[in-house]
Amino acid sequence: MKRIEVAVLGATGMIGQRFVQLLEGHPYFEIVGLYASERSEGKRLGDMLKLKDHVFGRETSRMVVEQIDVRKIKKEARMAFSGLPSDIAKDYESSLADSGVAVFSNAGSHRMRADVPLLIPEVNPDHLELVRRQKTFGEGGYIVTNPNCSTTGLAIPLKAIDDAYGLRTVVVSTYQAVSGAGYPGVPSLDILGNIIPFIKSEEEKMETEILKLLGKMKGGRVHFADFEMLANCARVPVIDGHLESVTYELKKEASVEALRKTLSSFRSEAQGLGLPTLPRVPILLRDEEDRPQPLMDAWAGEPERARGMAVTVGRLRKKDNYYKMFILSHNTIRGGAGGSVSNAELACAKGILR
Amino acid sequence: MKRIEVAVLGATGMIGQRFVQLLEGHPYFEIVGLYASERSEGKRLGDMLKLKDHVFGRETSRMVVEQIDVRKIKKEARMAFSGLPSDIAKDYESSLADSGVAVFSNAGSHRMRADVPLLIPEVNPDHLELVRRQKTFGEGGYIVTNPNCSTTGLAIPLKAIDDAYGLRTVVVSTYQAVSGAGYPGVPSLDILGNIIPFIKSEEEKMETEILKLLGKMKGGRVHFADFEMLANCARVPVIDGHLESVTYELKKEASVEALRKTLSSFRSEAQGLGLPTLPRVPILLRDEEDRPQPLMDAWAGEPERARGMAVTVGRLRKKDNYYKMFILSHNTIRGGAGGSVSNAELACAKGILR
Amino acid sequence: MKRIEVAVLGATGMIGQRFVQLLEGHPYFEIVGLYASERSEGKRLGDMLKLKDHVFGRETSRMVVEQIDVRKIKKEARMAFSGLPSDIAKDYESSLADSGVAVFSNAGSHRMRADVPLLIPEVNPDHLELVRRQKTFGEGGYIVTNPNCSTTGLAIPLKAIDDAYGLRTVVVSTYQAVSGAGYPGVPSLDILGNIIPFIKSEEEKMETEILKLLGKMKGGRVHFADFEMLANCARVPVIDGHLESVTYELKKEASVEALRKTLSSFRSEAQGLGLPTLPRVPILLRDEEDRPQPLMDAWAGEPERARGMAVTVGRLRKKDNYYKMFILSHNTIRGGAGGSVSNAELACAKGILR
Amino acid sequence: MKRIEVAVLGATGMIGQRFVQLLEGHPYFEIVGLYASERSEGKRLGDMLKLKDHVFGRETSRMVVEQIDVRKIKKEARMAFSGLPSDIAKDYESSLADSGVAVFSNAGSHRMRADVPLLIPEVNPDHLELVRRQKTFGEGGYIVTNPNCSTTGLAIPLKAIDDAYGLRTVVVSTYQAVSGAGYPGVPSLDILGNIIPFIKSEEEKMETEILKLLGKMKGGRVHFADFEMLANCARVPVIDGHLESVTYELKKEASVEALRKTLSSFRSEAQGLGLPTLPRVPILLRDEEDRPQPLMDAWAGEPERARGMAVTVGRLRKKDNYYKMFILSHNTIRGGAGGSVSNAELACAKGILR
Repeated sequence: MKRIEVAVLGATGMIGQRFVQLLEGHPYFEIVGLYASERSEGKRLGDMLKLKDHVFGRETSRMVVEQIDVRKIKKEARMAFSGLPSDIAKDYESSLADSGVAVFSNAGSHRMRADVPLLIPEVNPDHLELVRRQKTFGEGGYIVTNPNCSTTGLAIPLKAIDDAYGLRTVVVSTYQAVSGAGYPGVPSLDILGNIIPFIKSEEEKMETEILKLLGKMKGGRVHFADFEMLANCARVPVIDGHLESVTYELKKEASVEALRKTLSSFRSEAQGLGLPTLPRVPILLRDEEDRPQPLMDAWAGEPERARGMAVTVGRLRKKDNYYKMFILSHNTIRGGAGGSVSNAELACAKGILR
Repeated sequence: MKRIEVAVLGATGMIGQRFVQLLEGHPYFEIVGLYASERSEGKRLGDMLKLKDHVFGRETSRMVVEQIDVRKIKKEARMAFSGLPSDIAKDYESSLADSGVAVFSNAGSHRMRADVPLLIPEVNPDHLELVRRQKTFGEGGYIVTNPNCSTTGLAIPLKAIDDAYGLRTVVVSTYQAVSGAGYPGVPSLDILGNIIPFIKSEEEKMETEILKLLGKMKGGRVHFADFEMLANCARVPVIDGHLESVTYELKKEASVEALRKTLSSFRSEAQGLGLPTLPRVPILLRDEEDRPQPLMDAWAGEPERARGMAVTVGRLRKKDNYYKMFILSHNTIRGGAGGSVSNAELACAKGILR
Repeated sequence: MKRIEVAVLGATGMIGQRFVQLLEGHPYFEIVGLYASERSEGKRLGDMLKLKDHVFGRETSRMVVEQIDVRKIKKEARMAFSGLPSDIAKDYESSLADSGVAVFSNAGSHRMRADVPLLIPEVNPDHLELVRRQKTFGEGGYIVTNPNCSTTGLAIPLKAIDDAYGLRTVVVSTYQAVSGAGYPGVPSLDILGNIIPFIKSEEEKMETEILKLLGKMKGGRVHFADFEMLANCARVPVIDGHLESVTYELKKEASVEALRKTLSSFRSEAQGLGLPTLPRVPILLRDEEDRPQPLMDAWAGEPERARGMAVTVGRLRKKDNYYKMFILSHNTIRGGAGGSVSNAELACAKGILR
Repeated sequence: MKRIEVAVLGATGMIGQRFVQLLEGHPYFEIVGLYASERSEGKRLGDMLKLKDHVFGRETSRMVVEQIDVRKIKKEARMAFSGLPSDIAKDYESSLADSGVAVFSNAGSHRMRADVPLLIPEVNPDHLELVRRQKTFGEGGYIVTNPNCSTTGLAIPLKAIDDAYGLRTVVVSTYQAVSGAGYPGVPSLDILGNIIPFIKSEEEKMETEILKLLGKMKGGRVHFADFEMLANCARVPVIDGHLESVTYELKKEASVEALRKTLSSFRSEAQGLGLPTLPRVPILLRDEEDRPQPLMDAWAGEPERARGMAVTVGRLRKKDNYYKMFILSHNTIRGGAGGSVSNAELACAKGILR
């Protein structure tokens, strides 16, 4: 089968390079162009390596980064993965959709638009239908977004719980890795042996995106979920993997044992589609008293191509009518590039990307 | 004025050495003996230094550590500060009280006993009266405890808020420094670039101690507070300073501005007593969007002798009927040795220690 | 081909678990027993996991650790890999050799014995012959050791250089990872945001072991190399990978370009034997101005089974008659378990282990 | 006595703020202006805090930063302390000297000029005379520089040793703190749990500056020292304090005991002048087997105003004809702002600054 030609936007950044990593040898997609700002024009990807735990293949390393040019992208690619910074993402992504390119974006610019799916295959695969409302859809151009990194890891277990018991209130506190801020990102002087209890716009994103993700499609639009969502976000001296403490109330009472079953047996229709970058088991439940931990669980997920795509849940506890747990997911894989790659796979499987 | 002879128990540990640091040159107290386990018998304090940010004075450094011996302590000291590990603290502290020594302890063993004050001068100075119910009180022997490190920093702002608006629910997630686990404590292999979402018994301590601290004295006993208290505790790669995210509901609505005033103007009767180790302003409110931070705020507190004794509060926010904030305090000073030293000062000021 | 039955000693420690990791699915060897101290008797390996970057296979995880028992080991295994602490390694390893078991040890106890090979396949494969002088050799029992972790990474490039130009003086300063101290090892309070310029006995080991390794076999014994070897050792807050700065004088002058070729083209006779755990290219030369780095280069080495077995060299410089470079190798793989596993493979290939 | 009006250049950077910290309440100098780039024009110092371990006094915090303007500086100040980045320091400092302002600079731009003193009060106070050769000296304008941060800490003990025994070869490897790269400086993604064995131009600076510093004044110019100086520089995840391993050969043999005495008794003529920011004892010798360490020794130095100005030396060893030691100094105090402040004090004491 011929693979679909794709472009990667923001290829010199942390998320852009995770896109390239996940797309190397991908069974559906073939990278035909790497794009970034003017500054990187003409440089080889291998000379601008931002990842420390991955080495690109020889051919990929030698690919030359070009300045973003909508017309050129349109010519060579049917699809674009965007790891662009939000400030410039908005216009480029709109132009690409206008030109008939399907854009799968990690940027925040279009996430809350009524006709743009904010999508996680395990959580709301039916929201993908929103693209049909985009005026450029007929020409093959549209935008699909993945949520903010700290939202994604949370949304998956919350979906399983909400379906079974109904969420009433969710209080989350995050322990977010520095890779979430991109490169150069957080100065070492600020974070070595320190915690920063603030990440710009992060709490707002979590508190709104989660309600769209868990919302229901009715009459062609998303009706937002209506539980109370409260977030406190902090940056910690960890490279990869966002840990989150979650305390919640349910509409229907549950035993810890029942919750365990609900979480570990959770599968969405997407799991049944055999998408290459989706984990067979989306939620891994740990029994140890001290898991999940970033160093041990960030890369959870099977098979090989889905490493870093599973969400690990541990320390399930109940006190009175409240439930507590810790969750962890890889912020630049599950909560970043892997989110959009799996969304694109879903679009293919559903025939949205023809 | 002649100073009161005091012994320090557990002088080779992290908390024990913070006791020594705070007692050097203290206007009320004079260290006459340093005690620890048999293993350290005969060694000089200066050769067993655990603190990296403090150098003991020449004379203190040369003091020789002795094996704990209740009879000997009784002979030379009227008071003992205990930084003993909980497993051995219980019996030693009881024996000392039986012998007529007033014990101010950081250990957890006796905290929840009905006749033992779990005390913070700013929070519940009246609880000190509980000591009169201890059967050894007549002979001058009794036990006063300070709360667990993560509880202390939280109790002070919660007291101010509860008095003014009534707490209904409190959800706290902690970012706790490694010094809280003592020395050697947390192995570097476990925490470098990592978070451990578990600290043994810590959540249970926070959830029960806070209710005793904010309880009311009636009829000679403490009636526990009855709001819902929920804790998630995690260890982070920080040396000193416990950060905590706090989300809460109030019985009476408050504006963020009103809460700010309540917190920053909070003073207990203890502040009026001029105790040397109590900060003039117990709660410092920060306006910056990214404070408090361990590296910047752990040592907050004035005057000099009260450094590390103030609690810093920042990022006050309100959403619907919920309030959010981050708090930070020095876990081995405010939440450890400084807690008991200020308790002993309070006992002196109130004439309990004659 | 039937695989050789092997036992792993010290299986609950950092090095012991690296042995198990490298022996899982090994083409020559099959783990038949895991041994450690009495304390771990009866526990399953999976419940005592020390590695954070590796998950044992299901069957290996369920293996039960037994207390060391020379007779039992003798019965089931022909070979033992020892990750025992040096203090207890000496006697156990001697007893095992006496019993006819071939011991490949990472412990320091027997390294400097005249009849014990201190062996690196790439450096001194001919030293393996020393085992024939061990009195137990006839019965199949003998001891082969790998060098100290910081020595191994240094010995390989020095061997290449010494052969070509003759070393006169070597000054090395180390930046050693905390995993080198085992588990629990270095307390986080000592090393977070800090450097400790001291590792017990490490400098002495480097200064003597390197001379034995680069010594020549003559008349059945090793004649030590005689260049000047000077070491300064420090511990840094890094999980895995020892970095070393090396400054040296040569007997014969060399250009930087010639040195580069010498290093990158270096192959020993062992490379020709196709040993599974030896890297095809033992020395990787980096051109970037800021390599090697622990996070990027510790796991260098191909093929898959030899990951962590290559030594990375970078920043080759010359000033007057002095040469400078930085080297890096994985301290618990190349400098630990992988050292002994490749030594055992060499012994098989040379027919020493029948 | 009226204090001398001084300006601080680069007041929003790491070094600039250390200048302000050291000049607060200084007995000789009074800050009358804070200068930085256009970007910071009009902002208050307290709102641009880069230091995490120091809080400026209320009045200093409220000082407003102005854009650098040579004419304005000339009007209000007789002296300027420069923490400017090297690329812009060169011209501004020259212009200021031309205008009759005495410039004490931490920047590298003028350090190697034949008529500019590269000065450490303890090492080469006589080099200060070089300023008389600057053509602007008659008008009160001249430039005095302090060395690079890693050079300063090394030069002081080397001076003591060279005077007594004559240096032949010095091999140094550095463990440099991230504050040496300024703010934002080193990205956390590059250095968390990692070492970077490269700092741009650092080795070249160390290898040349040290020879000028230890050079002799003859005939109005500096005759460079001529021992062999070899440096390997690396960045480590430490906030403050450069550690260095030093291996050296001497012309005259010395016992370790003699070296100890030489170092610990070393005082320069500058110590006799009672300069406020110079430590009474410039070299502190530690006997412990594991010192100096950044967390424990960076702030060494007495009296209070000279904290961070002493160099700590430990682990003195001898092997054959080679000597080894570790040294540590505070890179932004002794190796930065404190260097120039003490140079200015020396200029005052010597009547160079009238």
